[in-house]
Amino acid sequence: MLSSDTRGVFAIAPTPFLPDGSLDAASVDRMTDFYWEAGSDGLTILGIMGEAQKLEPEESLQIVRQVIARAGSRPIIVGVSAPGFAAMRRLAGEAMAAGAAAVMIAPPSSMRTDDQIVGYYAQAIAQIGTDIPFVLQDHPQATLVQMTPGVIKRIINDSPSCVMLKHEDWPGLDKISALRDWERDGSLRHVSILCGNGALFLELEMQRGADGAMTGYAFPEMLRDVVDMSLAGDIDAAQDLFDAHLPLLRYEQQPVIGLSVRKYILARRGAIANDTLRTPGPKLSAATKADVERLLARLARTDRRAAF
Amino acid sequence: MLSSDTRGVFAIAPTPFLPDGSLDAASVDRMTDFYWEAGSDGLTILGIMGEAQKLEPEESLQIVRQVIARAGSRPIIVGVSAPGFAAMRRLAGEAMAAGAAAVMIAPPSSMRTDDQIVGYYAQAIAQIGTDIPFVLQDHPQATLVQMTPGVIKRIINDSPSCVMLKHEDWPGLDKISALRDWERDGSLRHVSILCGNGALFLELEMQRGADGAMTGYAFPEMLRDVVDMSLAGDIDAAQDLFDAHLPLLRYEQQPVIGLSVRKYILARRGAIANDTLRTPGPKLSAATKADVERLLARLARTDRRAAF
Amino acid sequence: MLSSDTRGVFAIAPTPFLPDGSLDAASVDRMTDFYWEAGSDGLTILGIMGEAQKLEPEESLQIVRQVIARAGSRPIIVGVSAPGFAAMRRLAGEAMAAGAAAVMIAPPSSMRTDDQIVGYYAQAIAQIGTDIPFVLQDHPQATLVQMTPGVIKRIINDSPSCVMLKHEDWPGLDKISALRDWERDGSLRHVSILCGNGALFLELEMQRGADGAMTGYAFPEMLRDVVDMSLAGDIDAAQDLFDAHLPLLRYEQQPVIGLSVRKYILARRGAIANDTLRTPGPKLSAATKADVERLLARLARTDRRAAF
Amino acid sequence: MLSSDTRGVFAIAPTPFLPDGSLDAASVDRMTDFYWEAGSDGLTILGIMGEAQKLEPEESLQIVRQVIARAGSRPIIVGVSAPGFAAMRRLAGEAMAAGAAAVMIAPPSSMRTDDQIVGYYAQAIAQIGTDIPFVLQDHPQATLVQMTPGVIKRIINDSPSCVMLKHEDWPGLDKISALRDWERDGSLRHVSILCGNGALFLELEMQRGADGAMTGYAFPEMLRDVVDMSLAGDIDAAQDLFDAHLPLLRYEQQPVIGLSVRKYILARRGAIANDTLRTPGPKLSAATKADVERLLARLARTDRRAAF
Repeated sequence: MLSSDTRGVFAIAPTPFLPDGSLDAASVDRMTDFYWEAGSDGLTILGIMGEAQKLEPEESLQIVRQVIARAGSRPIIVGVSAPGFAAMRRLAGEAMAAGAAAVMIAPPSSMRTDDQIVGYYAQAIAQIGTDIPFVLQDHPQATLVQMTPGVIKRIINDSPSCVMLKHEDWPGLDKISALRDWERDGSLRHVSILCGNGALFLELEMQRGADGAMTGYAFPEMLRDVVDMSLAGDIDAAQDLFDAHLPLLRYEQQPVIGLSVRKYILARRGAIANDTLRTPGPKLSAATKADVERLLARLARTDRRAAF
Repeated sequence: MLSSDTRGVFAIAPTPFLPDGSLDAASVDRMTDFYWEAGSDGLTILGIMGEAQKLEPEESLQIVRQVIARAGSRPIIVGVSAPGFAAMRRLAGEAMAAGAAAVMIAPPSSMRTDDQIVGYYAQAIAQIGTDIPFVLQDHPQATLVQMTPGVIKRIINDSPSCVMLKHEDWPGLDKISALRDWERDGSLRHVSILCGNGALFLELEMQRGADGAMTGYAFPEMLRDVVDMSLAGDIDAAQDLFDAHLPLLRYEQQPVIGLSVRKYILARRGAIANDTLRTPGPKLSAATKADVERLLARLARTDRRAAF
Repeated sequence: MLSSDTRGVFAIAPTPFLPDGSLDAASVDRMTDFYWEAGSDGLTILGIMGEAQKLEPEESLQIVRQVIARAGSRPIIVGVSAPGFAAMRRLAGEAMAAGAAAVMIAPPSSMRTDDQIVGYYAQAIAQIGTDIPFVLQDHPQATLVQMTPGVIKRIINDSPSCVMLKHEDWPGLDKISALRDWERDGSLRHVSILCGNGALFLELEMQRGADGAMTGYAFPEMLRDVVDMSLAGDIDAAQDLFDAHLPLLRYEQQPVIGLSVRKYILARRGAIANDTLRTPGPKLSAATKADVERLLARLARTDRRAAF
Repeated sequence: MLSSDTRGVFAIAPTPFLPDGSLDAASVDRMTDFYWEAGSDGLTILGIMGEAQKLEPEESLQIVRQVIARAGSRPIIVGVSAPGFAAMRRLAGEAMAAGAAAVMIAPPSSMRTDDQIVGYYAQAIAQIGTDIPFVLQDHPQATLVQMTPGVIKRIINDSPSCVMLKHEDWPGLDKISALRDWERDGSLRHVSILCGNGALFLELEMQRGADGAMTGYAFPEMLRDVVDMSLAGDIDAAQDLFDAHLPLLRYEQQPVIGLSVRKYILARRGAIANDTLRTPGPKLSAATKADVERLLARLARTDRRAAF
């Protein structure tokens, strides 16, 4: 089970599909292995970038079981956000029964006021049970829900089963600092903070007190090294490596087409067989693929792991 | 199967739950009978007001089968809107196999431009098959998607399987007029137009050329009479009856708590056993219930069907 | 100066234009007189329904001065919401110098969290000065800003110069009850509550403890009578009159075209010379005008003030 | 006057304020000179990043006149977007009378459908006059308005006075390609395309056929060089320079605090005296300033223009 002291890299895994849009079970195993080889400590599945909202419930469960079986003792976090609590409760229960380390919950976009957000998490925890560790996902660009540091504090202090914040507010650096300041003055219980938002500010988030990365950038090796170097205090080495990846990373972090770019690179790396997204979803133009190839080739001059 | 010449009243049915939030199968039968007795020609199930997004897929299918079995030869329309086409295709296929008359599709809120909306319907039809008649739902207050009359025209003319428009834009009266004008000048194929938006403008929509109502107001008897009187040209009688219901109807058509009010009245009328909404959902305050009771009592002075 | 004990009717006045879009100064006087004759206690000018955002600053000031001069001792509230505090501070100062009774402030749509909203009002008050009484406008349908009762409480208790809430949340009845409950238990300072949202729930809002109406419905006479009868405890008489107006009121309260409908009726009543809106703005179709005329004729059977 | 063949760099200029929030006229001159020395061909003033919405009309006009006077023969584009056409028409007329080269217009956020957007520009042009050259601003992240390439095509082909597209859609590379393809097949009149969005994809936009940059990154020297090298075909040199700036550029391009970062750097460079934003606006934390200083120091190792 996931603890509030977790550090390191949890890759956000996509869901691999065959060209006809059906689940690609063979690629699920291959992809899981890929992430361990690339230095990931754990995986997060069925998030927004996992196209969870396009999956049937039995498909979701199939992926959960297969990834956990393949992962052995490695921790797997399962996204269980859903419009209704019935689906959330069921998937959370099934995921934990299958051996998941924790679940992850983002609020629905209709939540606006502080009380609505805090109340939603109280209801969600009552539904799934207080014995399931959960990750609080703060991702306003996707959810439209704005959580102040104070709201996050209320949820963490109210909920012993909250063990981690997935931080992807933007701008968000001062939010990490505010939470860590409250931990230092004793007003906030410590939880792990892993950073998302495509890793666009990862090297700086580590300096503000983050514990690692939880995002799907197609080179988890970079996330691994930047997190390790940052935790070891090698700030400039972390920044140098990060900077080398930034032109490509920025390209992958685009709205709308970002996941297509990510799957394209993962397929080029052999982590999955196809770069297919389930419809409705965008397709990459030839010019976009050429952009990616060029940025990859340039990256490979500095980081040989991008050469293939 | 639903045709483009359909007229009359299709009640939007809620989904009945027991106080613990589980499906109330007994109430599904009772409610179905209620709607026939109240003058509904058909039913629409699994819409937004049916809390479809809070149901598990097998629950959805259970409701579809039970309602259709109970309905006999009456037409049932099944809402199949979903974030992914996999779920939409599956539910549409299962619903039609179970005997549904048509499916209803609203666009996802990310659709913005004319081409995105038209393209979305083309993709959806390709997924479910061109042999399934469908209802185009135009409900910008809920979906945030703005369809011009021109966009609706493109979808109808491009899609022979589009047989009906569920009209609930607001303001929307001139939109009906624009579509009917195009039918008259031959540039638009005729489809049925049934009106939603809680019936807040029903009597005027009928005068603009609508064919009836598709909404869930807790007195389908009024919808029935207003539609019949309007089609028969008894404009003032229709308006008199409509006006008598308007204070209550307005109360039921409120955002956020409207469905709770509706279920409260339906439970008071004996159409369903409980007024429970699945969480997350609002609860009515005592003061709100007192408002409803008072408005019901006043309505009963004019329309005896509100006396109980 | 406006006090927290204010009761009655403040009409939201439109801004009259000539057909070419220029200010119609003659109609400003005529309209001001009309509102007194129709039973309004005061006026609110330069609100959203006053097309304030389409006015030049000197035009705004001209209207403020002319209305106040014409109003004599009657209280005038001036909307001063603006994207920047420079414009707000200037207009507030000029309005008060000209003899306004108070200013009204709505938050900008970028405010999301409780702290942002409370902080915005603190900043605004610091800018305009604590000696200017202000009306807190809570209108989420227009501003997209959701204020909980708790946020309103914080603002009122923090700000002695807050003398009134313009209440137009929807649903909003329980919000009035919550605020009045807090006043009774001593945790909230008393302020006046006047209700907007086109008066769609006015008769019920009065029963929850509102002090009156602040909205622009084209028959202020009805607002006057409903407020008086409600304050006198004649609940059923108030409801009867309200119900007679509801079919027309609902028509006027539509999004997008509502202000055009309102100006059309005001022009028909002779309160202003033309129903012109400044561009960009919608125009009424012939069918829409016919709807309004028919609803007016029906209303006139019950309320002779609608006969003309 | 601006022509549709314009190429190069137009810096988006901020508005300089004194610490008390009043206009800093001395800095207006200093800043204008700075942009010429940094390689800018022209300036765009009173845009979103110029805090235009916080200025009084006479302040706007004062800035327009002062910048144009200081600019000599250099072209100045003036943002004239406004909630009402009265203010737009007046500012456009005054700006052109003062010697502006063109005006820039973004649509209001209420525009949703293709016809609404096209209609809005037709109305705007009718208001300001067809003899004023204008820049079409396509910036959905700020305006929420989504324009397809087809909508842009309609506006350009309908409006001879449209001479430039300010391109800042995201993702937006394929949009440039689509427009240039239409120019090649003769279905679209040629206009200049300058790119904004903080220059986050500038080097790739140039390869898709853009004519230059229109954005406010605090090192216009980089924009100048990347545009020149790209137009000269030195793709790799352009990319190398761009990559060196990307870590800082990304930091400056953040939502909410981006303009504060930009003004901080411009003040550090001596282009303006203070980094003040008018309230309401964010303030930079000490940690944020330390981030910026560190990124500047790292950049200076590669680009000496960042050393100071």
